[in-house]
Amino acid sequence: GLANFVGKPVSQFFREFEGNLDPSTAHGSGDVKYHLGAEGKFFRMFGDGETTVSLTSNPSHLEAVDPVMQGIARAKQEMLDKGPDGFTVLPVVMHGDAAFAGQGVVAETLNLALLRGYRTGGTVHVVVNNQVGFTTAPEHTRSTHYCTDVAKMIDAPVFHVNGDDPEACVWVARLAVEFRERWHSDVVIDMICYRRRGHNEGDDPSMTQPEMYDVIDAKRSVRKTYTESLIGRGDISLEEAEHALRDYGSQLEHVFNEVRELEKADPAPSPSVEYEQAVPNSLQTAVPLEVIQRIARAHVDLPEGFAVHPRVKPVLERRSKAAAADSEENIDWAYAELLAWGSLLIDGKLVRLSGQDSRRGTFVQRHSVVIDRHTGAEYYPLRNLTADQGKFMPYDSALSEFAAVGFEYGYSVANTDALVLWEAQFGDFVNGAQSIVDEFISSGEAKWGQTSYVVLLLPHGHEGQGPDHTSGRIERFLTLCAEGSMTVAVPSSPANYFHLLRRHATDGVRRPLIVFTPKSMLRNKAAVSRVEDFTSGGYRPILDDPAFAEGGTDGVTRVLLCAGKIYYELVAAREKAGRTHDTAIVRMEQLYPLATEELAAVLDRYPNAGQDVRWVQEEPANQGAWPFLGLWLPERMNGRLPSLKRVSRRRMAAPAAGVAKVHEVEQKALIAEALSD
Amino acid sequence: GLANFVGKPVSQFFREFEGNLDPSTAHGSGDVKYHLGAEGKFFRMFGDGETTVSLTSNPSHLEAVDPVMQGIARAKQEMLDKGPDGFTVLPVVMHGDAAFAGQGVVAETLNLALLRGYRTGGTVHVVVNNQVGFTTAPEHTRSTHYCTDVAKMIDAPVFHVNGDDPEACVWVARLAVEFRERWHSDVVIDMICYRRRGHNEGDDPSMTQPEMYDVIDAKRSVRKTYTESLIGRGDISLEEAEHALRDYGSQLEHVFNEVRELEKADPAPSPSVEYEQAVPNSLQTAVPLEVIQRIARAHVDLPEGFAVHPRVKPVLERRSKAAAADSEENIDWAYAELLAWGSLLIDGKLVRLSGQDSRRGTFVQRHSVVIDRHTGAEYYPLRNLTADQGKFMPYDSALSEFAAVGFEYGYSVANTDALVLWEAQFGDFVNGAQSIVDEFISSGEAKWGQTSYVVLLLPHGHEGQGPDHTSGRIERFLTLCAEGSMTVAVPSSPANYFHLLRRHATDGVRRPLIVFTPKSMLRNKAAVSRVEDFTSGGYRPILDDPAFAEGGTDGVTRVLLCAGKIYYELVAAREKAGRTHDTAIVRMEQLYPLATEELAAVLDRYPNAGQDVRWVQEEPANQGAWPFLGLWLPERMNGRLPSLKRVSRRRMAAPAAGVAKVHEVEQKALIAEALSD
Ligand SMILES: Cc1ncc(C[n+]2csc(CCOP(=O)(O)OP(=O)(O)O)c2C)c(N)n1
Ligand SMILES: Cc1ncc(C[n+]2csc(CCOP(=O)(O)OP(=O)(O)O)c2C)c(N)n1
Repeated sequence: GLANFVGKPVSQFFREFEGNLDPSTAHGSGDVKYHLGAEGKFFRMFGDGETTVSLTSNPSHLEAVDPVMQGIARAKQEMLDKGPDGFTVLPVVMHGDAAFAGQGVVAETLNLALLRGYRTGGTVHVVVNNQVGFTTAPEHTRSTHYCTDVAKMIDAPVFHVNGDDPEACVWVARLAVEFRERWHSDVVIDMICYRRRGHNEGDDPSMTQPEMYDVIDAKRSVRKTYTESLIGRGDISLEEAEHALRDYGSQLEHVFNEVRELEKADPAPSPSVEYEQAVPNSLQTAVPLEVIQRIARAHVDLPEGFAVHPRVKPVLERRSKAAAADSEENIDWAYAELLAWGSLLIDGKLVRLSGQDSRRGTFVQRHSVVIDRHTGAEYYPLRNLTADQGKFMPYDSALSEFAAVGFEYGYSVANTDALVLWEAQFGDFVNGAQSIVDEFISSGEAKWGQTSYVVLLLPHGHEGQGPDHTSGRIERFLTLCAEGSMTVAVPSSPANYFHLLRRHATDGVRRPLIVFTPKSMLRNKAAVSRVEDFTSGGYRPILDDPAFAEGGTDGVTRVLLCAGKIYYELVAAREKAGRTHDTAIVRMEQLYPLATEELAAVLDRYPNAGQDVRWVQEEPANQGAWPFLGLWLPERMNGRLPSLKRVSRRRMAAPAAGVAKVHEVEQKALIAEALSD
Repeated sequence: GLANFVGKPVSQFFREFEGNLDPSTAHGSGDVKYHLGAEGKFFRMFGDGETTVSLTSNPSHLEAVDPVMQGIARAKQEMLDKGPDGFTVLPVVMHGDAAFAGQGVVAETLNLALLRGYRTGGTVHVVVNNQVGFTTAPEHTRSTHYCTDVAKMIDAPVFHVNGDDPEACVWVARLAVEFRERWHSDVVIDMICYRRRGHNEGDDPSMTQPEMYDVIDAKRSVRKTYTESLIGRGDISLEEAEHALRDYGSQLEHVFNEVRELEKADPAPSPSVEYEQAVPNSLQTAVPLEVIQRIARAHVDLPEGFAVHPRVKPVLERRSKAAAADSEENIDWAYAELLAWGSLLIDGKLVRLSGQDSRRGTFVQRHSVVIDRHTGAEYYPLRNLTADQGKFMPYDSALSEFAAVGFEYGYSVANTDALVLWEAQFGDFVNGAQSIVDEFISSGEAKWGQTSYVVLLLPHGHEGQGPDHTSGRIERFLTLCAEGSMTVAVPSSPANYFHLLRRHATDGVRRPLIVFTPKSMLRNKAAVSRVEDFTSGGYRPILDDPAFAEGGTDGVTRVLLCAGKIYYELVAAREKAGRTHDTAIVRMEQLYPLATEELAAVLDRYPNAGQDVRWVQEEPANQGAWPFLGLWLPERMNGRLPSLKRVSRRRMAAPAAGVAKVHEVEQKALIAEALSD
């Protein structure tokens, strides 16, 4: 593919693959060679200058890489920073005809092409249209006349070109690039050609496309006919043609032998990438009070005459007040998040957030942009911190998950110095991006050594809003966790969330972070932090029960383990049940990697509770953290949890009941069970 | 929505929702009311005739219902069977502007519109274009001029109409339907309007769209302006207008009171749907030899002069021979499947299969259609069984998962008498349809009482083909299993697969079936069945070790439990290790619902193996059936499995290693571990 397309020497490509061809030097479980990315320089044969060319790693999942590549290109453009129209990185995507017509992510990605938060100045799409998809005929793969008709949606020009005519192809490629440079629009090349052999070894295409393959079998190759016409025109001599052919052949042979040599290496089971990146032992995530106060000021130092919405004004004022060391205002979740971002911005980091309605926040909580009530003018508090601060780029996204998540993942791959966050409207919708989660986020490092800092924020929690507004499917992310593939956290306090984000952005461990974020807890008066929690302390994967901070742990005969908002419900219920003396409530703020040492240290404080440790979750028994913890935690705790019991909803097919009142009785019942003997 | 759109009385809709509003009469965990489907009759105000109107249940996941609805419409049309152009069921889909522009499944579904296996004679799309998506402005939701531009891909006409002008809307609706009837093409109505209030209770749109909402707040409602113009034109009198308003108001009030009454019912935890459908105790799935032979003959009784491909011919001949009672030919997987379908067709069932390259089969195994080597003419053996047989409809699908799976699910919902199968190219690609699996297949019954017989065939198995050609993610399906939501099976023998399919199609239990299907095992000479296995016997969720069929079980000190193709590798390795006397290998052909009684009965036969039972799987420890079985099987077996051990690959981020040789050493190591002391 790329070798011919950009004229890069074949041998160079193969050499770049070598490491992965030799199983003994692979760094992780690896991938098939034709999925691996590469980076190199393309030297022009005539003229000067060189072009950096990079090939993006991709999974078998056709077209899934499209948005990822857009994110990579966008990040690279922003790092080069050639101004608003500095689209000097050219995205080129190769497609199959059936895939381009069939996969919805193609349309989702096209729909990002001109959006302020996503545009890359136009992409050149090359559809290698071999007029068949494996064995499937075009009339079964598309309802459209051309395989490229989906590009009509954004009025992208489409050039249909005869693949048998190399000069026409070159001409069209030039035209496409020129068009893109001039109009910053996507351009599509539909290169009509054919597939000489079957789709793979087992496929004999004359079984399914007999007439087509009778024609193809009788056809002479493009190389032959083009060579002949070059010779006929006197452009090259017969000798030159033969020499070029031999030369190319021997290049291939050389590489083939090299590869065969490498493949002789003794294979070994694939190594885990788990220990390739280790969290540094001590990391400072607290910030000086001055940082908090600077961010606070930015929330109230609005431009002269800026008319803040009457419902937003008090929010900004509370934020400003909460930064005083002895303030009576607390710091809530949304503000803690802005403080984390603001502090990173002050350190020069770029912070990019995208998601549906993320600028204001689904739950009217964030207000990262303040909008003038009369004029619609925008004011971004976090863009007004210091003169040399990093860029703050929050975007309301298109109504997409697949392309939107893919884009942020790609962005985070290319700009490893940015904090890149995608937020779901509700965690429930992240399954629209399942291919990106499976194929890139959770496994990109193990397959390709491709690391990412991307953060997914998934609003999660049982609050009676029905089966599709409840669950980001913690269980699914935890199942994908292995080899340290991701960090999965369910923080319950604003400050711990703040430290988690700061740790993630500064610890040098490039791995995705999945945060299950609050909904009602955003407004829970108990779920707040004090400014001291930000200027001191740090991230804690396990939070011990503050009720026993001063001791009294000997009287505790039961430990409830939990995560997320149910903690506050359990605390309230314990109070009501009069069990503040004998029941401790410990929070597992981080579910993966398991903080077993920290958990052991906390459990050690309750010597009389060993026989009654309960994992309490709102989620049904087959969901939430239980399937993961129930199976692995006792084993990982080396006998420290002899009888971990589960308190949860029953096993359920859907994530939650449909009726709020049913939710309530269920919730009550499980909390009662947690506190019952 | 629909109440106004089709003119159905509001109260009727509400009454249909009643059952679900009253938590105590809900049949399952339920869903929020605005997701529930309904069915009713629409009586024309003038003229006669009535129209059956049905509203499809849908999840919150915007646009996910699009392909489902197409499948439902297609199935209904085929059941009415008005001939090839009998598109008498009119699909109407309501969209939001942001969703229509943003979600890829819209394009995927549009791309099915004209395909032979999917067309429904044109769909009327109504985009209720309120010019905002929650808080997101159009310039952030789309790169296109109109929110409907994606429909350009199939050249569907788009009517942009002013929602403030009711008569224009009616006129356009008529035109759209007439166009659809005349041209059998999709038609799109872009009804431009506005949203008067916020997206939900918490949303004050003047925070984010201040100028727009200044305009909207000042705008008088369509009802008012239209009423005035009707009165002005003399079409109705003021009294009539007031009467109509009062009448409508009191209708709403009546319903509101009714609903409030119902909602007073005491809520109870939501009931499981598990026992609403029970598998009948004895079910005949074996068929008379005559049935097999009839199908066999159809494989060789080809039309005069039909030129079978030289590679296909021997396959057909072997199939024909294998049907003789004392044949030396065995029956392989692909043929067993055709026999199951053929026998159901003979019984009059409709069998519909779709998937990428499914007619021939990804692995060149199925040949459900034989293609003339010279003319391309098609011969379907399974369409040539009996005069009154059911329809056999295998289709090569578009290169889609989301829309393709959604369509088959919908088809299976509407035609409950058909066997409807979707096949993945490799199981790995089913995650592209994750929203359909999560929101419909696994939870439609619990949420809406909407049952489906759909079958997913997911090629699965560790064979060194890399991380994306290995796994249908058994673990993910099993996590979704609860309340009998689906049957999940990994059959290892052609005959057991045959009986499974027949049981599924005839047992009256309407629940989806997920089958993890073979790849290399398709050609494994050991993985075959005899014709007697089809004419006698039945489906077995647990297969005991045939090596101990005659006894000798006292000498067994270890039982290996497994599923799928690894069984054959274990049998071969046991032979080689000389452990045929002390190691039994038991297959769990069905992973959910767990066949605990059958398993207990088998384990009872090995009284000396109780301390050493090992679950052996190819998949990494965090994948495959282990996360499910490891947690639940010992509990469900009531202490009968005191120490179930796991033999598997290590925990891995990706489903498999990328290099075939690494796969091999890993595979060897785990098989050795299974047989080691
Ligand atoms: C999302 C996804 N679904 C299914 C497949 C399986 N698959 C591999 S190649 C192929 C056909 C591809 O046809 P086309 O897009 O025309 O490309 P070609 O192979 O002809 O270049 C299919 C269906 C896949 N790789 N990805
Ligand atoms: C697949 C999916 N992603 C996200 C959401 C969350 N969500 C609910 S409504 C909405 C905005 C919808 O806008 P639009 O399509 O214009 O419809 P409107 O609500 O304006 O009628 C969003 C993003 C969803 N329901 N489904």
